[in-house]
Amino acid sequence: MRTSPSYTASYRIQLNESTTTIAHVVDAVAELDAQVKGLDVAESDRGHIVLDLTCDMRNSEHRRRVRERLAALPGVSVDSVADQTFLAHVGGKIEVAPKSPIRNRDDLSRVYTPGVARVCTAIHDAPAKAHLLTIKANTVAVVSDGTAVLGLGDIGPEAALPVMEGKAVLFKQFADVDAWPVVLNTKDTEEIIAVVKAIAPGYGGINLEDISAPRCFEIEERLRAELDIPVFHDDQHGTAIVTLAALINALTLVGKKIEDVRIVVSGVGAAGSAIIKLLQAHGATDIVGYGRSGALNRNEVEGMHPSRRWLAENTNPRCVSGSLKDGVAGADVFIGVSQANILDGDDIATMADDAIVFAMANPTPEVDPIAAATHAAIVATGRSDFPNQINNVLAFPGLFRGLLDAKVREITTELLRVAGVAIASVISPDELSPNYIIPGVFDERVAPAVSSAVRRAVRDLPHIDIPVQEGLTTER
Amino acid sequence: MRTSPSYTASYRIQLNESTTTIAHVVDAVAELDAQVKGLDVAESDRGHIVLDLTCDMRNSEHRRRVRERLAALPGVSVDSVADQTFLAHVGGKIEVAPKSPIRNRDDLSRVYTPGVARVCTAIHDAPAKAHLLTIKANTVAVVSDGTAVLGLGDIGPEAALPVMEGKAVLFKQFADVDAWPVVLNTKDTEEIIAVVKAIAPGYGGINLEDISAPRCFEIEERLRAELDIPVFHDDQHGTAIVTLAALINALTLVGKKIEDVRIVVSGVGAAGSAIIKLLQAHGATDIVGYGRSGALNRNEVEGMHPSRRWLAENTNPRCVSGSLKDGVAGADVFIGVSQANILDGDDIATMADDAIVFAMANPTPEVDPIAAATHAAIVATGRSDFPNQINNVLAFPGLFRGLLDAKVREITTELLRVAGVAIASVISPDELSPNYIIPGVFDERVAPAVSSAVRRAVRDLPHIDIPVQEGLTTER
Repeated sequence: MRTSPSYTASYRIQLNESTTTIAHVVDAVAELDAQVKGLDVAESDRGHIVLDLTCDMRNSEHRRRVRERLAALPGVSVDSVADQTFLAHVGGKIEVAPKSPIRNRDDLSRVYTPGVARVCTAIHDAPAKAHLLTIKANTVAVVSDGTAVLGLGDIGPEAALPVMEGKAVLFKQFADVDAWPVVLNTKDTEEIIAVVKAIAPGYGGINLEDISAPRCFEIEERLRAELDIPVFHDDQHGTAIVTLAALINALTLVGKKIEDVRIVVSGVGAAGSAIIKLLQAHGATDIVGYGRSGALNRNEVEGMHPSRRWLAENTNPRCVSGSLKDGVAGADVFIGVSQANILDGDDIATMADDAIVFAMANPTPEVDPIAAATHAAIVATGRSDFPNQINNVLAFPGLFRGLLDAKVREITTELLRVAGVAIASVISPDELSPNYIIPGVFDERVAPAVSSAVRRAVRDLPHIDIPVQEGLTTER
Repeated sequence: MRTSPSYTASYRIQLNESTTTIAHVVDAVAELDAQVKGLDVAESDRGHIVLDLTCDMRNSEHRRRVRERLAALPGVSVDSVADQTFLAHVGGKIEVAPKSPIRNRDDLSRVYTPGVARVCTAIHDAPAKAHLLTIKANTVAVVSDGTAVLGLGDIGPEAALPVMEGKAVLFKQFADVDAWPVVLNTKDTEEIIAVVKAIAPGYGGINLEDISAPRCFEIEERLRAELDIPVFHDDQHGTAIVTLAALINALTLVGKKIEDVRIVVSGVGAAGSAIIKLLQAHGATDIVGYGRSGALNRNEVEGMHPSRRWLAENTNPRCVSGSLKDGVAGADVFIGVSQANILDGDDIATMADDAIVFAMANPTPEVDPIAAATHAAIVATGRSDFPNQINNVLAFPGLFRGLLDAKVREITTELLRVAGVAIASVISPDELSPNYIIPGVFDERVAPAVSSAVRRAVRDLPHIDIPVQEGLTTER
């Protein structure tokens, strides 16, 4: 197990240089495999030194052992240990910032009373103006009930907040979208729908997040039908967009066409079903989905949830049955959004030549990516410490940027598809390689590429029409 | 009617200096009583000048007349007219700002995956940590259904947004509180309660705003009982706090004691009933409330809403009946939170010596403040263009700052009272004068005075206990 920047700690220690030198301290820590990242002298007084030593650790146990080792050095005492990850969360990760300050009475009379009343009246007379004159122009609600958070499962709304805040940071940083966390103290499908409908006037879009299947399907479908702003479920459609992008480039590299390949998808929950539908929209014809009890096929649909039944009836043209291990034999593409270590290298060896493996279970992939790479042409995962990380952050910021700019009322499958194509196109044919089929999360070309593809694609969709505002737009 | 900075417009004009000079232009505008505030040359090319002329106007009609006058000058054309108030609202007045950017993979792994999972787990294990490690530590929901916005009435949630955004700007600017607008597409009492309860995990406090009476009473009471974070209705309690503050100083000036004076309150809706209760908590004994049909008294309670019935049974010890005009005769204090021009100077003349008049109906007070001042010792209004503006912005930012700092679970009447006393105390006895009984909205002493008074007062109330966080607080 490697050290990780998510386990960075700062030790504040006092030492007497005549007994133990700073070099001694660093050696002692290095012996325990902690990675020293910084060394700052806070005070120094005739050989008595106060030192902040910052290191990456493996985990909390590692952090404790290093503290004990430091404290055991002669002439050294440990005053405190600060965990950088927790420190980064104190007080929350986002704040509400006024776009311009109220410095004087004139400012106050423009952004608050009495001037604000004219803006209120203008919106009351023409509600679409809220998309121009309020935060609705640029805000997305990041809505979660905390039931399917990362690999942690149902941890509740408060514990889900740090993820939603992180999401808001990414929305702002990559696409200047103002996202606000909305974590809900209910798991009831009808109540979630009612709450999101009630708060919708304040937002230009809804990003559903980490809501467990199958409730997420009905919640998303109903909200799409009943709201007049775009509704997106990132765990479904974000994952699908980025998977499509990676697959487009992977297929280009191996010289295969999407309509010809056999695709196996492990996991038919939120992510799996959205991936299947989006790959179909892009031309895939032979997809077999696998749940815990094997291949979905149209002969075994008794008692199935409607969303899963749809998959069984609209995929698997060869009507395969049986286990995943049997199913990967001869397949061109394996896509995993399920659980750790359900396949091994030998299974990948049974796939077709130039196999493509996307093993995206987190934190541990469906198959060890190093073992998979000995048999497959291209391997991608959801992890940041292997090549080809398939990460939703490539999709959602640019997608909502485009939707908000275009003032479009709904998201279509075609929009998701063009977003995926746009992400793939960021990597030029010259740059493509088996270890570089998808742009990195910090690639600044991605969000603009996605947003402009969305703006182009929505031209024919229903828009919000904002009436011309006297005194705002140019007038003769 | 005066010009107003809430009707500022910028005219972009082109002129030929050989035909009309800039001085001509300014004269022409001044002749129409527009107040020129700025004059910026955008381009100048051999006598051809592009000019931005910024003026305060009276209203939209005035703005149109000035445009026509400018266009009629020889050699002048008007390219566009921009309204500064509407321009200040484009795209909304607040944004979501990351507290620290994600610059690299280390940052990402701390504020998002994988590091964020440790913070989620810590909160799942001890939910109170959400008050330390998430935005819940510093956020307030500004909740409105848009039914009683300013003087505009029921304008709906979208049209209410600019007010709630303005409120969020004030919260941040005056007390560093992160307030987020929550405008609701429902007027149903039960649904509003359910929605606020559902979204409460993301907030450290609830500020109800511009919800019409009598629904606001039940909504506030139920939420106070059912949530474990502070719930405040600004239209009730914010107004009450600031009114108490003004009254404390006014009584000091005229040398009267609150327990001895006769107080008449016109308006027994949200604001009026809260004012009555808070003045009673501070010692007032003789208050008579007036609704549209006259004095509330315990002999006429048939068919009354419970909130109004409570007032009838717990005020008016002399059991006065009849009209407001009769009631003000002999009163020491008149407090109006009702409607324009229901009294005149002659009515004020019937009050006791050294009368105090707070006529807070907006935008037009219950009695003309200039007429009132000829008969009363002290006059205050809700308006910014007369002395002694009684403005809620003096109360809510500091109050919530104190509540969030102290991690208190509920607001008590005693907290509201100490907030009022703190605002009053900002003006020293030496500074007090009939035109200065309440601090100005930009007085930077106010919010800290309120927040520290709240922190002191809450010591004995139920708190949120945050368990010690290993790696965050100092450890040996």
